[in-house]
Amino acid sequence: LAPPPTITKLQSNASKTKCLHICTVFILGSLSSPQITVEDYEQAAKTLMKALFIREKYSRLAYHRFPRTVAQFLRIYVSHTGLPTDVCPCPREGEDPYNIENIPDNLSYELQTKDGIVYVYENAEALSQNRPRSLPYPDLETFAIDLSHVLAMIIDGPTKTYCHRRLNFLGSKFYLHEMLNEMAELKELKGVPHRDFYNVRKVDTHIHAAACMSQKHLLNFIQTTYKTEADRVVLEKGGRKLTLREVFEHLNMDPYDLTVDSLDVHAGRQTFHRFDKFNSKYNPVGASELREIYLKTDNLIDGEYFARIIKEVSHDLEESKYQHAEPRLSIYGRSADEWDSLSKWFIQHKVHSTNMQWIIQVPRIYDIFKSKKLITNFAKMLENIFLPLFEATVNPQKHKELHVFLKYVTGFDSVDDESKHSDHMFSYKSPKPEQWTADENPPYSYYLFHMYANIMVLNNLRKERGLSTFQFRPHCGEAGSITHLVSAFLTADNISHGLNLKKSPVLQYLYYLAQVPIAMSPLSNNSLFLEYSKNPLREFLHKGLCVSLSTDDPMQFHYTKEALMEEYAIAAQLWKLSTCDVCEIARNSVLQSGLSHQEKKHFIGANYLKDGPEGNDIRRTNVAQIRMAYRQETLCNELSFLVDAVKTEAAIGTQPE
Amino acid sequence: LAPPPTITKLQSNASKTKCLHICTVFILGSLSSPQITVEDYEQAAKTLMKALFIREKYSRLAYHRFPRTVAQFLRIYVSHTGLPTDVCPCPREGEDPYNIENIPDNLSYELQTKDGIVYVYENAEALSQNRPRSLPYPDLETFAIDLSHVLAMIIDGPTKTYCHRRLNFLGSKFYLHEMLNEMAELKELKGVPHRDFYNVRKVDTHIHAAACMSQKHLLNFIQTTYKTEADRVVLEKGGRKLTLREVFEHLNMDPYDLTVDSLDVHAGRQTFHRFDKFNSKYNPVGASELREIYLKTDNLIDGEYFARIIKEVSHDLEESKYQHAEPRLSIYGRSADEWDSLSKWFIQHKVHSTNMQWIIQVPRIYDIFKSKKLITNFAKMLENIFLPLFEATVNPQKHKELHVFLKYVTGFDSVDDESKHSDHMFSYKSPKPEQWTADENPPYSYYLFHMYANIMVLNNLRKERGLSTFQFRPHCGEAGSITHLVSAFLTADNISHGLNLKKSPVLQYLYYLAQVPIAMSPLSNNSLFLEYSKNPLREFLHKGLCVSLSTDDPMQFHYTKEALMEEYAIAAQLWKLSTCDVCEIARNSVLQSGLSHQEKKHFIGANYLKDGPEGNDIRRTNVAQIRMAYRQETLCNELSFLVDAVKTEAAIGTQPE
Repeated sequence: LAPPPTITKLQSNASKTKCLHICTVFILGSLSSPQITVEDYEQAAKTLMKALFIREKYSRLAYHRFPRTVAQFLRIYVSHTGLPTDVCPCPREGEDPYNIENIPDNLSYELQTKDGIVYVYENAEALSQNRPRSLPYPDLETFAIDLSHVLAMIIDGPTKTYCHRRLNFLGSKFYLHEMLNEMAELKELKGVPHRDFYNVRKVDTHIHAAACMSQKHLLNFIQTTYKTEADRVVLEKGGRKLTLREVFEHLNMDPYDLTVDSLDVHAGRQTFHRFDKFNSKYNPVGASELREIYLKTDNLIDGEYFARIIKEVSHDLEESKYQHAEPRLSIYGRSADEWDSLSKWFIQHKVHSTNMQWIIQVPRIYDIFKSKKLITNFAKMLENIFLPLFEATVNPQKHKELHVFLKYVTGFDSVDDESKHSDHMFSYKSPKPEQWTADENPPYSYYLFHMYANIMVLNNLRKERGLSTFQFRPHCGEAGSITHLVSAFLTADNISHGLNLKKSPVLQYLYYLAQVPIAMSPLSNNSLFLEYSKNPLREFLHKGLCVSLSTDDPMQFHYTKEALMEEYAIAAQLWKLSTCDVCEIARNSVLQSGLSHQEKKHFIGANYLKDGPEGNDIRRTNVAQIRMAYRQETLCNELSFLVDAVKTEAAIGTQPE
Repeated sequence: LAPPPTITKLQSNASKTKCLHICTVFILGSLSSPQITVEDYEQAAKTLMKALFIREKYSRLAYHRFPRTVAQFLRIYVSHTGLPTDVCPCPREGEDPYNIENIPDNLSYELQTKDGIVYVYENAEALSQNRPRSLPYPDLETFAIDLSHVLAMIIDGPTKTYCHRRLNFLGSKFYLHEMLNEMAELKELKGVPHRDFYNVRKVDTHIHAAACMSQKHLLNFIQTTYKTEADRVVLEKGGRKLTLREVFEHLNMDPYDLTVDSLDVHAGRQTFHRFDKFNSKYNPVGASELREIYLKTDNLIDGEYFARIIKEVSHDLEESKYQHAEPRLSIYGRSADEWDSLSKWFIQHKVHSTNMQWIIQVPRIYDIFKSKKLITNFAKMLENIFLPLFEATVNPQKHKELHVFLKYVTGFDSVDDESKHSDHMFSYKSPKPEQWTADENPPYSYYLFHMYANIMVLNNLRKERGLSTFQFRPHCGEAGSITHLVSAFLTADNISHGLNLKKSPVLQYLYYLAQVPIAMSPLSNNSLFLEYSKNPLREFLHKGLCVSLSTDDPMQFHYTKEALMEEYAIAAQLWKLSTCDVCEIARNSVLQSGLSHQEKKHFIGANYLKDGPEGNDIRRTNVAQIRMAYRQETLCNELSFLVDAVKTEAAIGTQPE
């Protein structure tokens, strides 16, 4: 068990003088204030430590990441941290990425869904005896109890005060750091040969495949297909097969005349607080036919157009060399063959790119499928989503295409309008998925738990087989109830949006302490939920939360050809971010991403798994060591306060829980 | 004399219903308020009318533009409005732009500078008899009196109240217009075939040639030259000729290691309110040697690198097809041969581009030249700047290169830090330029008058000869005293920045009434003088001031490859501008620019000189006719209030001045 690192030890030589200077100020400043009693402080510390222990448990079980420094303070031995994708999915130079040889053998395992979770059995006999293989199968009751613990803590008065004050302190401390060290950081960066903001690796950590091209790109693509393939049959409607020409005739439209105005896929002022209007923007010219033809994987042309346009986007990324993206493809859970169809599309059209890692998004639209009588209960939806993955993991020879496709899938996302209210209050008494036969949609936490549970079991199974694991990376905290962020604190490796952390000091502080990565999209928020000037990204970054920048939907939100650069440029301009700031964000984006261990070593340095300046290769990241030292010292400082409080308590006789 | 247009006449058919609806509201709303007495209203109206008459006089004399609608209300016959560049400088298809044949003959005219203004004489005899040719020669006294009139009016209480209220009304009226007509405007735009924001013409109306490339572009260019021409002699220093390799060795630097960080030309937080620090950013790596080699026209390599990098920028513009720029090249007035050197550079390196119009910027740095004893008085500086232009106009055969270069120069700019305070108070008692031998710099207004005066005489002379005329387009209102904006109201065809109009309701209203174009650069301001969120662009646009978007210095301020698109994108994102808004800005930029009459007809429609919907070709501009009708009605409405007030006064027996 390694001892918790001390503050001085972590200072890089470059930064010693100034950092020492600033540290004195900090230590004086961070003594507990007279407004918080010692009892309150101890209570808050205990509570926060408990929350960290809970997250660590869920992270560990799912092979998610948990920061080493935090684990050291919690005195937890961590073997797996930071290596979620240690099985490199990237094909070696010259290797065929779609190669279906050397696929592992099938096993005789049996699978069965119970309470919405897939259970794995050694064989038919074990199944009949109901003896599942020894894998961690989570249960809803435990989760509900853990969740209620954290829920109680975020409204606890003393904890709120403590976290609020610590966060204010973190903000002021960074301001001081900036005043003292800004020029020194810049000097460090100027000394780095051949590396600047333009050639550090940046990952677009949150982007939807169906909106990953710009509006102008989609427009040009539609016009090009019409010019060259007008007589191709592309759609079946009402039993009749239609050519592209017929589709446009039917829409009473000449693609040559089409403009981004008539295409009408861009979010405008009309979409603010109107997620419904925003969703309809996925239909070019308001016509669902064009969405079907151009933005779907399983249409009459086998998703060829969609594949082609995505490949044009990935071609641009490869050209740019330093930009990567993690586009979301949808699996709905409507039927069990979605995975086969999607993986077939992926391989048939050779969609793989070195600059794209794939994430599967699952829309939370049980209610729609139920009302259309496509499924009978929530368990069926979960089974449609997850059982095929277990089958492909157990019997890869039977599911070769899916097996290959899964090599390039690095995680799961849960998506939909978070502002929709749910009447159901999630608790340990909530019905099991088989019993969820109501027309109404299950609440957010219910979705999250069941996705997490399946991913967790699946990851354990895949780990056993030496296969890649998946991260759970839900949309969370874009709008709606604060409880969403509690669920994700337990279940998610990292999240997208996180805006609502603004509203809860306890959660914000917990996300800081646990360094939960947050992919933020301020331009998307600006069109949907929160004006740019009110976006908390800058504040989160300065306090030390692990934030990255992402585009969400270039088709709807961005104006230029390079959406991610537009996102960075606007943030840098508006918030007057320094080069070190933007390079820190870029480094966070690589850390947060599903890129493999090998790629991360290459992009941000061989020791990236280590925290603090040691883990930073400035020649690759262009992040100043002074900044790294500051972040690490500050985190250790915050953690040691918690640990000290609990120690004190232990010393005066109270047993820690 | 045409009658002033009526409101109903100007409505396009498309917009009739909604506009009528909105008009009722406006007419009720715009009756003079009980808080302003009839006397005050009449006084204010008389005053504002007078200011418009003054501007019209100065515009007319200089062949600047004055809006037809305003002239009609003032009952002034205008023959020249809107045709400042009716002599097309653009060579015809296939014609050599540097052709030095068919140059007009020399004349026997004589030239002499008096009071800092060049006088033209028919011949030597007329000169000896001091009988200048009949051209309008402005005098400082009249200008000082006109200026003091407008200065008095901007602090006049009733006028301030009146203008303040009218501006508020304009803001609210637009808000109402937006609420009622936004969707109708959008519908109009959707109906326009093949034209959207991406393919309407946009002119970058304010950009400095020495910073017209992105920082990354400059970096790549430096690296490329080093890779291919390291042994080329590029600089003379202390009598020694140095190769590129030696320069970099001397700077202790390997260009391969160079990054945008070490290049250090980007404005950061350090430049806010520090124009001095900003100016030093023109030196790559802080080394004036590199500025000399890469960003100057008159160096040891005859400005070859600077020409090459500018041509790369114009190549990108030509590729984009729809983007134009009006880069500023410097003439300092340090010596009389600057023009020859600059025109030689232009022609030798074939810098002309169809997508660039050139503007000459004159830095207001008399004090520096005086302290270095390069000039003896201010008149000498003016002579160095303007006499060569008169000579080339009178005797083009003697100055063939300058004659050709001047075909592509469309205007003059006056540049420097406006926030520098001047001790001298400009008045009719100010010393004449010959008497200005002090070390201190003349004030802003003094510079402006003398530039205007020379340009005005020159334009009259050139008009006689059938040559192109020049616009005066100074930087104005970026910082410093509000009086700058008064000087420019008289002397400028259009201005850059105009931020300080925020501070004076009277001037803001006058700029509105006279539709003085303003090239705004909110990203530049954000780095230098005013935070983005406080920039008045959106407010100005909505009230109906004629604003365009420009980049100022892409090298210092922008992050992406397409600086002008970045500027538009950020404005559109942050201020949630509609497509109609951004297309209106783009149309304004073409109107404001020095593009020729032929080009403007091609880019924004054959009738562009007409005001209102009639003058708008929506198929080219993508600006809704509803918007055009709204603007025209609103302007007519405001003008008719003024005219009515003066009429009333006349009717009750008071003689109008």
